[in-house]
Amino acid sequence: MKIYRANIIHTPTPGKFEIIPHGYIVVKSNGLIEGIYTELPENMDWRRQVMDFGDKILIPAFNDLHVHAPQYRNMGLALDLELLPWLNTYTFPEETKYADPEYARRMYRRFVHELWMQGTMRSAVFGTIHPESTRILADLFIQAGMGAMVGIVGMNRNSPETLQNTTAELIEGMRMLKAHLDEHGEGLVQPIITPRFVPSCSDKMLRALGEYAAETGMPVQSHLSENRSEISWVKELEPDTTCYGGAYDKYGLFGQTPTLMAHCCYTDGEELELMRKNSVYVVHCPMSNSNLSSGMAPIRKFLNAGINVALGTDVSAGHHMSMLRVMQYAIQVSKLNYAQTKGEMSFLSLSEVFYLATKGGGSFFGKVGSFEPSYEFDALLVDDRYLNYDNYTLEQRLERYIYLGDDRDIKRRFCRGVELTEPCL
Amino acid sequence: MKIYRANIIHTPTPGKFEIIPHGYIVVKSNGLIEGIYTELPENMDWRRQVMDFGDKILIPAFNDLHVHAPQYRNMGLALDLELLPWLNTYTFPEETKYADPEYARRMYRRFVHELWMQGTMRSAVFGTIHPESTRILADLFIQAGMGAMVGIVGMNRNSPETLQNTTAELIEGMRMLKAHLDEHGEGLVQPIITPRFVPSCSDKMLRALGEYAAETGMPVQSHLSENRSEISWVKELEPDTTCYGGAYDKYGLFGQTPTLMAHCCYTDGEELELMRKNSVYVVHCPMSNSNLSSGMAPIRKFLNAGINVALGTDVSAGHHMSMLRVMQYAIQVSKLNYAQTKGEMSFLSLSEVFYLATKGGGSFFGKVGSFEPSYEFDALLVDDRYLNYDNYTLEQRLERYIYLGDDRDIKRRFCRGVELTEPCL
Repeated sequence: MKIYRANIIHTPTPGKFEIIPHGYIVVKSNGLIEGIYTELPENMDWRRQVMDFGDKILIPAFNDLHVHAPQYRNMGLALDLELLPWLNTYTFPEETKYADPEYARRMYRRFVHELWMQGTMRSAVFGTIHPESTRILADLFIQAGMGAMVGIVGMNRNSPETLQNTTAELIEGMRMLKAHLDEHGEGLVQPIITPRFVPSCSDKMLRALGEYAAETGMPVQSHLSENRSEISWVKELEPDTTCYGGAYDKYGLFGQTPTLMAHCCYTDGEELELMRKNSVYVVHCPMSNSNLSSGMAPIRKFLNAGINVALGTDVSAGHHMSMLRVMQYAIQVSKLNYAQTKGEMSFLSLSEVFYLATKGGGSFFGKVGSFEPSYEFDALLVDDRYLNYDNYTLEQRLERYIYLGDDRDIKRRFCRGVELTEPCL
Repeated sequence: MKIYRANIIHTPTPGKFEIIPHGYIVVKSNGLIEGIYTELPENMDWRRQVMDFGDKILIPAFNDLHVHAPQYRNMGLALDLELLPWLNTYTFPEETKYADPEYARRMYRRFVHELWMQGTMRSAVFGTIHPESTRILADLFIQAGMGAMVGIVGMNRNSPETLQNTTAELIEGMRMLKAHLDEHGEGLVQPIITPRFVPSCSDKMLRALGEYAAETGMPVQSHLSENRSEISWVKELEPDTTCYGGAYDKYGLFGQTPTLMAHCCYTDGEELELMRKNSVYVVHCPMSNSNLSSGMAPIRKFLNAGINVALGTDVSAGHHMSMLRVMQYAIQVSKLNYAQTKGEMSFLSLSEVFYLATKGGGSFFGKVGSFEPSYEFDALLVDDRYLNYDNYTLEQRLERYIYLGDDRDIKRRFCRGVELTEPCL
């Protein structure tokens, strides 16, 4: 058992921050939270074990529910095109390099290191079509002690010849990845079914992945309704479905097992209703959507409909791995939506986006992203002393950290109860 | 004379970066640039003087053409309201505290330090109504060696009683500030006429400021067409002018002397034409406009019309003092404009926003913001080694610094030829 004392802040519900000044959080040896206390019970044994973090702030760690590991090298580059030409010009050529496991190892080490640095303890990650490189990525997460869902990407049409896999290769690769992670992943690193998006996957591939999902119960991640040209293209490719999401649904890849759909900038009507009914997650990537001129996802509408929403960096269409930045963009994009709808869609509050970045996304991994009893202890210790030079309240200190802070401010990182030291670079 | 060797990048024109790998820049003892050389002339005396910065990158320093020094304490806070309620709820109460020169000194030291940290060597700054506090701010710039235009803010209506000055007090304050800076500012720190915005200033005050501008030739800064409610309000307050900008123009505050107008989210038609004709600068503050749900300024339209455009953080409506962030937002907002106009307004390129952040804004201070001959040597030395782990080109290295870098990467800062050490905090 471990006991930490700090200014504890989390969001069990989106509507407001729960703030416990100089509170105690008790973490059991299995990494689960026993509870939060304002005073410790009269128990000498407990009192001796307290690790006191002084005036620092303890928050749930961040969860990035949509990120492309093999695009890490291109982060901050090549943001001058829209989605489809961007894929062909910059992204596919880079992903092709991951046929070389040594290149993959060199870049993925940096990628995992940066997640650690930015305080992102769980992530849902696209690899490439290459099974060995993707296993290397999964192993790097295991070594770092960080949670991740990692997928070999399925793509067998409308892609460069050098970046396609067959349905058989993909399923075989996923079976091997699953066997490997069942043995070594400790439930913290898991495989996830990852069709790139409808335009990249033949009907046969989507059907096989849907069957594989049904067989294994494995979760699914993909892209949905990111950009207008993409949506028109899907309409041409799948003329018998009435919405883009319907194309995944037809094959059992839309909530039949837990499912993440990134973007949803233009999701509405039938597609929105299908997501709600099937409990499909929207992964909102506002930084990426701005960078690729994709659009402004109507997150307030999704929340009102009771749809699960998480946040993603979508590196490298997102240009930064900091979830703080994603939170800022999520609020700002919601404000532009607010201005454009003349106030009809109210914008997101700070506690709402904090919830999305912690418990909203964390819920995809189980009881993750909050400090409630029986939740896994994923946490960041934040030292904001250089920002805290006037009489700021604790909530204001958190707000300033979200808007002004960066990786320097994170002093300790915990995942499932274990403090994680810096992964080798 | 000083000679620096580095990878030199600047934008004499917006359309592209001029890149001189391992070039030499020769700076005369008066702080002006003699020239850039790919090889030094056969002159032993020159060769001995070279300070070699290795593989680092030397760029023009940044210029922030719209920032509110007395809102520094609120940076990263209180972004849950639109402009007018935001002013009344958060901003005016904070500015009222600057009646106390000791409070002003404590906060302004931090403010000037942060500008230095972020590599912003020139800025156009709003103070408060308080002459003494504003003089303290100006003196801190002089001590730091950084360029600034600093204004006592005029406001005598629609503001808290504790935050109003009379026209006489304002003009008297400006005269004293001018006398002080004529003596001590060395042309680097100068006064600027600063009516807050039309709703805060009576006709009498605006008229007196216009006359003072005509008398002294002093430049002017204010706000324009930031938000829909504000524009309607100005229409009510100034029924005989046909556009918001016309209200400044009527009093000689709209290009009669060099003029900065922040925001211009809704500037079009007559107002746009008046700005063009009078060479009024648009100061684009995209971070602020997103934070306050103001709107998305049509910068492409301004550039096409040949209007001068600069960038501003607009702290604390902007939440960060980094001009890198402002450049990112400028591109992103232009992309959202692009998406919304279905491609009609092309978005801003990286070299264009870099130009705006350096030479575009710098031109308001004279020959500033470029490394052309006879320009003042304002520069930043950037060490991007942690970002440069693969075979990136120099242009890509700069791009990654703009998207991923922060204050840590700036190793040296120069203003008008002088290397500036860290100001006391």
